[in-house]
Amino acid sequence: MTNQTLILIQCRDAVGLVARIANTVANHRLNIVTMREYVDEPANRFYVRVVCAGKAEDNAQLAGDLTSVLPAGATVTVNPPQQKRLAVLVTKEHHCLGDIIVRHFFSTLGAEVCCVIGNYDNLRAFTERFDIPFHHVSHEGKSKEAFETELVETLAPYQPDYLVLAKFMRILSPAFVAVYPGRIINIHHSFLPAFIGANPYKQAHNRGVKLIGATAHFVTNDLDEGPIIAQDIKPVNHSYTVKDMVRAGKEVEKSVLSKAIALVIEDRVIITGNRTVVFE
Amino acid sequence: MTNQTLILIQCRDAVGLVARIANTVANHRLNIVTMREYVDEPANRFYVRVVCAGKAEDNAQLAGDLTSVLPAGATVTVNPPQQKRLAVLVTKEHHCLGDIIVRHFFSTLGAEVCCVIGNYDNLRAFTERFDIPFHHVSHEGKSKEAFETELVETLAPYQPDYLVLAKFMRILSPAFVAVYPGRIINIHHSFLPAFIGANPYKQAHNRGVKLIGATAHFVTNDLDEGPIIAQDIKPVNHSYTVKDMVRAGKEVEKSVLSKAIALVIEDRVIITGNRTVVFE
Amino acid sequence: MTNQTLILIQCRDAVGLVARIANTVANHRLNIVTMREYVDEPANRFYVRVVCAGKAEDNAQLAGDLTSVLPAGATVTVNPPQQKRLAVLVTKEHHCLGDIIVRHFFSTLGAEVCCVIGNYDNLRAFTERFDIPFHHVSHEGKSKEAFETELVETLAPYQPDYLVLAKFMRILSPAFVAVYPGRIINIHHSFLPAFIGANPYKQAHNRGVKLIGATAHFVTNDLDEGPIIAQDIKPVNHSYTVKDMVRAGKEVEKSVLSKAIALVIEDRVIITGNRTVVFE
Amino acid sequence: MTNQTLILIQCRDAVGLVARIANTVANHRLNIVTMREYVDEPANRFYVRVVCAGKAEDNAQLAGDLTSVLPAGATVTVNPPQQKRLAVLVTKEHHCLGDIIVRHFFSTLGAEVCCVIGNYDNLRAFTERFDIPFHHVSHEGKSKEAFETELVETLAPYQPDYLVLAKFMRILSPAFVAVYPGRIINIHHSFLPAFIGANPYKQAHNRGVKLIGATAHFVTNDLDEGPIIAQDIKPVNHSYTVKDMVRAGKEVEKSVLSKAIALVIEDRVIITGNRTVVFE
Repeated sequence: MTNQTLILIQCRDAVGLVARIANTVANHRLNIVTMREYVDEPANRFYVRVVCAGKAEDNAQLAGDLTSVLPAGATVTVNPPQQKRLAVLVTKEHHCLGDIIVRHFFSTLGAEVCCVIGNYDNLRAFTERFDIPFHHVSHEGKSKEAFETELVETLAPYQPDYLVLAKFMRILSPAFVAVYPGRIINIHHSFLPAFIGANPYKQAHNRGVKLIGATAHFVTNDLDEGPIIAQDIKPVNHSYTVKDMVRAGKEVEKSVLSKAIALVIEDRVIITGNRTVVFE
Repeated sequence: MTNQTLILIQCRDAVGLVARIANTVANHRLNIVTMREYVDEPANRFYVRVVCAGKAEDNAQLAGDLTSVLPAGATVTVNPPQQKRLAVLVTKEHHCLGDIIVRHFFSTLGAEVCCVIGNYDNLRAFTERFDIPFHHVSHEGKSKEAFETELVETLAPYQPDYLVLAKFMRILSPAFVAVYPGRIINIHHSFLPAFIGANPYKQAHNRGVKLIGATAHFVTNDLDEGPIIAQDIKPVNHSYTVKDMVRAGKEVEKSVLSKAIALVIEDRVIITGNRTVVFE
Repeated sequence: MTNQTLILIQCRDAVGLVARIANTVANHRLNIVTMREYVDEPANRFYVRVVCAGKAEDNAQLAGDLTSVLPAGATVTVNPPQQKRLAVLVTKEHHCLGDIIVRHFFSTLGAEVCCVIGNYDNLRAFTERFDIPFHHVSHEGKSKEAFETELVETLAPYQPDYLVLAKFMRILSPAFVAVYPGRIINIHHSFLPAFIGANPYKQAHNRGVKLIGATAHFVTNDLDEGPIIAQDIKPVNHSYTVKDMVRAGKEVEKSVLSKAIALVIEDRVIITGNRTVVFE
Repeated sequence: MTNQTLILIQCRDAVGLVARIANTVANHRLNIVTMREYVDEPANRFYVRVVCAGKAEDNAQLAGDLTSVLPAGATVTVNPPQQKRLAVLVTKEHHCLGDIIVRHFFSTLGAEVCCVIGNYDNLRAFTERFDIPFHHVSHEGKSKEAFETELVETLAPYQPDYLVLAKFMRILSPAFVAVYPGRIINIHHSFLPAFIGANPYKQAHNRGVKLIGATAHFVTNDLDEGPIIAQDIKPVNHSYTVKDMVRAGKEVEKSVLSKAIALVIEDRVIITGNRTVVFE
């Protein structure tokens, strides 16, 4: 994006929006390379992601000019910060964290891991090998409120753009989620058909599923609800033990979460209601 | 399978079963080409599918000799009928039926479609183009019991080996299912995560799923439960309307059902509890 | 598309094209629903597919107004014919033809199969069951030139929009291809890694590939070259015989060709050089 | 495998092999849990992988007893070493190495990375963070023979069971390969259709492929030939730049190589001619 301008807009839908936006961009002597838009018709909302060749001379001026031609209440973002800051929350499982940190180390994550917080301490050694701060914030012997207050205070100095729940096994309260609205990404196992409740892999094994899946989503009020960002599956068969299924599940969790992070930090994902628009 | 012998066995697990079976087969001067076995440890059940080069001189004698070396209660099948007879039950949707009948016509189904029964009449013209009997058995104005009795009576003269519910939208009672135990194959949409209740595609759209799936399974007591035979998915995205999702779903339903039928009629699928063993 | 306007444009790239197009569309009081564009930078070509809510009052007027704001030499198409006419060319294999014709019969193909031409006669019975004309144009005892002349003459009265080579095993000359430029769709087996020459499935088996693929593409001068429209694969393993691999290959050929046909007849595919842009 | 016995056999095919093996195993009071065999008919070779419940009292005695009932020249392995030692060879790209080392660190690789050798030095820092020896063996200013001699000498003290070429971009001579026969695993990009020669991703982009693949294989005499262990693909589209395709390719290379390593170190892969048998 070194010599490009990225524009993100959402607003009430109206006739001629694309023309108004394209005219404004042309007046700034920027050439549109790709433009992806989506109209959520039931919600009457318009979303667009525009990539232009050339750097805007004045981002604020361009944003202002765009706002002036759009319906009232439009959100216009010109060149959002590219180097996002991620805080990663974990419990005990390492598979997602490992992938994220290696990408961070080799600068292929497209974002910076500013810290890792674990409600257990066992991923400290791995994290610290990469000179990333690790904080152990235990949930034990605390109310949810006290635990989450401690999380918020630990996170605050890092000013993360996004929280990544990389197999963080605590359910977050709506109060916590409200601190990072639309900015918490979670990875969740998923099954065809789905199994709710304790030990989903055991249930999936007992039913003899032939696919194991994973879903990355934004966290809203419930841990496992919220707008879906990415999903994928891996085939399994009758010879898989519960342990084998867990292992297959980890592989797919890891790759789905990494894909979701990449989409989000490239500003390709927009939340509309309980869905996402993903301009891949 | 023209010059081969297929042996299917299930019995209580015990030490030395493979040796006893292999010895018996060798005594009949048959050479094992492939042998696939599975032990369901919690259930203490042993399952094996053996393909031998050469035709057994006497199927009954071989089956008897095998039975004599196995634990009491073993089920031994030598060279099950290869040309299975399928009855297909439909409602209004044609996508699964079309695929099955074309395969039947070109003799690539590996089975014979002996009849099609619809609770609506609209797939008659297509079916009859292929000289396959079509019966319209309406459910309207009848009790479920009366409807199912009519189904059973319509099916009886065809003596089908399997019933294929190719988008048959009536829920069958346990009494009906008991007439064809382990011999009814259904195709069911599936989602990640799953949506239960009315209009699942609408629900899936509202949640913004990124995958649409399908599950083929044996029917036990519930229409959408029972041991899973095959599953697959197709990727979708935010630009799919509900109608587009339905269309994508039909493609995957069609291919998953065809795959499940192929596996079943080649005697590769064994039911163990609420799971299947699939010797692909 | 009943109450929509579809606009397809390709032209030399220039600054402000999106603005000019969007303004023109807005002047016709049409609201853009989706707009997908692509710039082939090395070729300096601009491609766009616009769907508007509402029917243009005058297609020719809209096309003219668009042309007047675009660089010289632009190609502008407003509301191309929706019910394309397909001629299907076959040899002996039925799997792709069967799928196409069933979709035609149930009006889910999105196009009309106007005729089937076989260089063998064995798919006549199937085709004629659906009241579709079948022509046997044998290649035997004829020069390629004579054979192709006969094909052209047989096709002419049907005025097909596209020819679909549904496992048509004759190589077409550049002279024939020039009669239907960018309008011939072929399906080709593909392998990882690829095998060229006689009996590719035998070669693939000998090498022990773990995937079998298929590629649908436009035909240019060579049968197996030309811009790729769609590709897919199926996993296989060591237990697959050559025959099993052929069978798996047919499944994937069938689904890839159907997907490619759907994309083309919905005017979602644009040829640029030896590539396609697919606005899925 | 803590309380199991693993038996690997390959020999000339003959009637009754399964019976002889199963009898011998039963005589040692071991119960067969899974038995997977494959007959390469053209080569007249028999391969079997047997997992038994229970530890053999005397591995050598069991191997000897098995050998005595098999055709001359049989290879019998009882309980091969479980903790394989891997030497990883790299050039500059980190994506495969990163995945392997993280798995090593968390003990989920199923093997030990004994050393990493790079013909460039730039992956040293990453490797040494995990306390794994890194050797820089440059190819520059040396004959291939001298370079490979240095490799062999560097590797020798580690006594690796397998060499993993994790994007090692030097072509190895037959003389080098002969030092580790059937023990060198390579990862290779693959395309549908394939592109040979310089800059394959550029070629693939120019052709507009819709899939990017990767192939893990044993190295025989050519770098990119040899029996295939695992393959997979990722979908791409026209909007992918060459750089995007390279990035997608790295993801699939990483996961395919990890899968291949897992299969090999669990003794699930057998080489037969230029193919593999994979008992998944």
